[in-house]
Amino acid sequence: MTVLPSTVSTASAVPVVPSGGALRGAGVTSVTLDPAGFWGVRQGVNRAATLRHCLDWMERLGWIENFDRVARGETTVDRPGWQFSDSEVYKLLEAMAWEFGRAPDDELAALFGRLVERVAAAQDADGYLNTAFGHPGLPGRWTDLAMGHELYNAGHLLQAAVARIRTGHDDELVRVARRAADQICDEFGESGRHGVCGHPEIEVALAEAGRAFGERRYLEQARLFVDRRGRGTLAVRPLLSAEYFQDDEPVRSATVLRGHAVRALYLSAGAVDVAVDTGDDELLAAVTRQWAATVGARTYLTGGMGSRHQDEGFGDDWELPADRAYCETCAGVASVMLAWRLYLASGEVRYVDLIERTLFNVVATSPSADGRAFFYANPLHQREPGAAAVDGVNTRAEGGVRAPWFEVSCCPTNVARTLASLGAYTASADDEGVSLLQYAAGEVELGGFRMRVDTAYPSDGRVAVRVLEAPEGEARLRMRVPAWADGARLAVGGGAAEEVLPGWVDLRRVFSPGDELVLELPVGPRLTWPDLRIDAVRGTVAVERGPLVLCVESTDLPVGAELAGLEVDVAAGVRVSGDGAVVSGIVRHDRAAGPALPYGAPDAGEGERVELESPTAIDVPLIPYHRWAERGPATMRVFLPVRG
Amino acid sequence: MTVLPSTVSTASAVPVVPSGGALRGAGVTSVTLDPAGFWGVRQGVNRAATLRHCLDWMERLGWIENFDRVARGETTVDRPGWQFSDSEVYKLLEAMAWEFGRAPDDELAALFGRLVERVAAAQDADGYLNTAFGHPGLPGRWTDLAMGHELYNAGHLLQAAVARIRTGHDDELVRVARRAADQICDEFGESGRHGVCGHPEIEVALAEAGRAFGERRYLEQARLFVDRRGRGTLAVRPLLSAEYFQDDEPVRSATVLRGHAVRALYLSAGAVDVAVDTGDDELLAAVTRQWAATVGARTYLTGGMGSRHQDEGFGDDWELPADRAYCETCAGVASVMLAWRLYLASGEVRYVDLIERTLFNVVATSPSADGRAFFYANPLHQREPGAAAVDGVNTRAEGGVRAPWFEVSCCPTNVARTLASLGAYTASADDEGVSLLQYAAGEVELGGFRMRVDTAYPSDGRVAVRVLEAPEGEARLRMRVPAWADGARLAVGGGAAEEVLPGWVDLRRVFSPGDELVLELPVGPRLTWPDLRIDAVRGTVAVERGPLVLCVESTDLPVGAELAGLEVDVAAGVRVSGDGAVVSGIVRHDRAAGPALPYGAPDAGEGERVELESPTAIDVPLIPYHRWAERGPATMRVFLPVRG
Repeated sequence: MTVLPSTVSTASAVPVVPSGGALRGAGVTSVTLDPAGFWGVRQGVNRAATLRHCLDWMERLGWIENFDRVARGETTVDRPGWQFSDSEVYKLLEAMAWEFGRAPDDELAALFGRLVERVAAAQDADGYLNTAFGHPGLPGRWTDLAMGHELYNAGHLLQAAVARIRTGHDDELVRVARRAADQICDEFGESGRHGVCGHPEIEVALAEAGRAFGERRYLEQARLFVDRRGRGTLAVRPLLSAEYFQDDEPVRSATVLRGHAVRALYLSAGAVDVAVDTGDDELLAAVTRQWAATVGARTYLTGGMGSRHQDEGFGDDWELPADRAYCETCAGVASVMLAWRLYLASGEVRYVDLIERTLFNVVATSPSADGRAFFYANPLHQREPGAAAVDGVNTRAEGGVRAPWFEVSCCPTNVARTLASLGAYTASADDEGVSLLQYAAGEVELGGFRMRVDTAYPSDGRVAVRVLEAPEGEARLRMRVPAWADGARLAVGGGAAEEVLPGWVDLRRVFSPGDELVLELPVGPRLTWPDLRIDAVRGTVAVERGPLVLCVESTDLPVGAELAGLEVDVAAGVRVSGDGAVVSGIVRHDRAAGPALPYGAPDAGEGERVELESPTAIDVPLIPYHRWAERGPATMRVFLPVRG
Repeated sequence: MTVLPSTVSTASAVPVVPSGGALRGAGVTSVTLDPAGFWGVRQGVNRAATLRHCLDWMERLGWIENFDRVARGETTVDRPGWQFSDSEVYKLLEAMAWEFGRAPDDELAALFGRLVERVAAAQDADGYLNTAFGHPGLPGRWTDLAMGHELYNAGHLLQAAVARIRTGHDDELVRVARRAADQICDEFGESGRHGVCGHPEIEVALAEAGRAFGERRYLEQARLFVDRRGRGTLAVRPLLSAEYFQDDEPVRSATVLRGHAVRALYLSAGAVDVAVDTGDDELLAAVTRQWAATVGARTYLTGGMGSRHQDEGFGDDWELPADRAYCETCAGVASVMLAWRLYLASGEVRYVDLIERTLFNVVATSPSADGRAFFYANPLHQREPGAAAVDGVNTRAEGGVRAPWFEVSCCPTNVARTLASLGAYTASADDEGVSLLQYAAGEVELGGFRMRVDTAYPSDGRVAVRVLEAPEGEARLRMRVPAWADGARLAVGGGAAEEVLPGWVDLRRVFSPGDELVLELPVGPRLTWPDLRIDAVRGTVAVERGPLVLCVESTDLPVGAELAGLEVDVAAGVRVSGDGAVVSGIVRHDRAAGPALPYGAPDAGEGERVELESPTAIDVPLIPYHRWAERGPATMRVFLPVRG
């Protein structure tokens, strides 16, 4: 086994620091995003609006006061919030911690400090910390491992503490988290309680906490939780199944992700951490295999995962309905977590490609422009306009409307912590040099390089990288050419642009300040055809531009035209239009449902299919999917039925 | 308002007896199905196996003993079964009662009697009867109208009592039910508790009980429940919605069925009863409109209803996925209940067409050949073979395997009561004569006619009707020509067969014993094309034979061929094969999911779609859908992707 480093530098605030593997990630402070860039804008809104928005909602609903109630000894079973509401407070603390890591903010820091005090006051003497279990008037500790979320909550506490210590603060939150982790190790260690948590999260959290705090014991506990899973120890409630919890099959032998999507992805991320830090190649290979099978037949064009509203779960292979795509925002976040760890372990570009796709089309789709409303589910087809946005608590599963808060409100804080630490996922380093992974205007300081990136990506495909500082001697600079970028070109140092293939452009040379690399990525619109085995979108085509999936929204159709009557004619190709595109198509106007079954006449041949009346030729305008539903309730579709 | 008859003849055991409307239905005893016919076989298995199967399971699980516990004063909250398990006992009593109505069985009668005694012993002095509420150690009466199912349970008790009195027994079960109904009217009357039940059923039950017992008060209570609904009085639990309960919009103003499918259909059936018996044409028109909209855009080719596993609900218009079709067996039963009432009210043939489709493709699909296992959900596409049948309690939603019992086990008893009373839905009468609605070998005695029906329908399209007794003077005999039956022919009295159009064949004449009518229905295979707006099955075609939807099952494919690689070529037409059909097609053999997203290359044109390797030409054998999964776990599909 690899030995864990006893201390990790906090200088660059790196979220994930495996003790082995191919690469090191950038840190939250080693990448500075321009405030006006695609991601810089979102990071700014997150900092200025979303953090306080989440804090206000949790205060208003009493989820924070739950900690005070424990401290005051006034706990009751009718406490507000679900059994996992503590985790939302912790995810907010994590988001805040990364934000402070990037730039101080005294007012936010004061809010953070008061929040930590309230959390700390609820901790038991032995380290146990939970507001829904283990106190007078509440169910006892660990009495509902399947659905109680106690370890899940603790996992998010640990992740907040990791963010805190990695950004240079060995403070009260860190101490609270360590006490909680120690108590869990005492309780669930090799000779302790033989259980796992119904919702994975503690695994990935303990592994990183072990790295951050130099506690080998935490990693060992994460390994135990991963190994124990899949052996049917969780009590399965009526109407659920062991698969829902990934308790049907050990991680080591499973072939594909299944059951509840966020659970499956968090577990896999933790399993990668355990595999890398213990040198367990078999376990790493198992997760790699599951990832490939999942991406190959259970993942949406947007990178979204989770085909079913029921159980918020993965579907079977090829079960990828556009309309009922669940594609929970949190599953997008979790998919980025998993792919990032697999990338760090392997250095393979495919993981970074999926991260880009998921960031632009799931993570960026969730928050509204003002950072105060969110999508929970991210369907690729909306048949009926959603209700107008409600300024209140929404049921979680509604598509078509971003809402300020949800009954199960995991997504807002998950978006917040992801945006707050986003820079860390844009570059990586190894002993030879630096890899640029995601293209965003800003500055990168990593691996001896300091670089300025100028780009309006993804609106424009030109990415100019200027070296401001370079390491001594020969170094390597890798730039990712996305899988979709056929015909990309790179110009080095003012020379002629030459075609570069998807994958890595790998430059090994002595770099000097002033060197410039200009990558031109073809972000014009392109048609994307689904695999013939995806029944739900047979006979349709999607349009993409660079990393962006496009969609058509009813808002942009002529008055009276309905999306249900749309067909496109792609023979004439796709034209650019602003940030989107235009294709030719028709709409049919007779969309009333008849009184008879919607299936054709008995003897109808191919030419006699049910035809709707009055097709009208139109231009079909497409916009980036992440911007849909910004202009009020609308119908929408990504996959466009092809005429004829 | 129409006056209710104070007594109704029990001579022919008619399940539904509106006080107004166009038609009277046949009775359970007025139609005798040949034991070897399609439905006769199923009715026999139901009687011989299913009734005891249900009884045994409910005894084994303690659902019947729940009544004993109430009688003994030993109730606790951890009683076995859901809050609606009482209703399963009542539905079994109803099924048994119809069975005795058809033919005595001393052993079953003894079981019935003992069961009624145990139920009766649990009734409170004031008539309240429930094993999950209202007794020491249980929640109080009516404390959870939204999810408690107290009125729902009572509704099924009333329906059992209706079956009992209509088959000539004014016994203990009837007295128990009347006391329960009286108590409900006292509690929920005009000046009483202003509530409705989260699961409709009491409405349709009170209406019929009012008719059967001559109690106008019960009908009035049903009317109150229908009118109160849709006004947001039900407490909506987290993650549910008022739509789930049909409490979002009054029945009178709603435009389509929505929310939980069985709830929506039971409510609608009750609303038709209320509308007919109170002469409320507006209410009848409202339900008629909702039925047409629902059948036109929210109903499957099988007649199945309910597109979503989540909330067991209807989807939006055109949301009809084949793979995740929920199509709960109970929704099929409920759809028959609703269509039957609309038919009796209007005499329109379209309702009978839907009943036929639903009986053959939903109700007949659910039970196994031995009557001891059932489908709960009835998807039209199974992607992965179901697990082998489990001899135990199954989660309700699993497709692909018939199971002996379910956690929520509403379907077995619903199938049982439907099959037990099936004959009643095969014919109707009015003052002018008789209508033959469903074709099954046997004898019909109704409206002055006695007729012998000989047919092997649906295997064969020949239906020969011989008049054994006829009314005096001119009479009318109507025969239904199903909507799919283009080219049907009728021969009267040995004359030449002449083409008859879908709808009714209406013969008005003086009939004499020995008269023979021979209807020839074209039950050869035909292609059925889905409406272009049903995204989930774009580019596919279905094959039907007569009233039967066909499907292809992996069991019938060459070794190594997978359904996910199937495409058919329909240019060559469809050939008959046994009870099924054969079409030409290909299968592709490379079905492994790749490590990349299942969407095509960026610049792929139409001709460059992802193509799978090694297409092989095969004959694709199709079998009746209702027989799928009889030969072990398999994949299956109804809608066949069309090549090219």
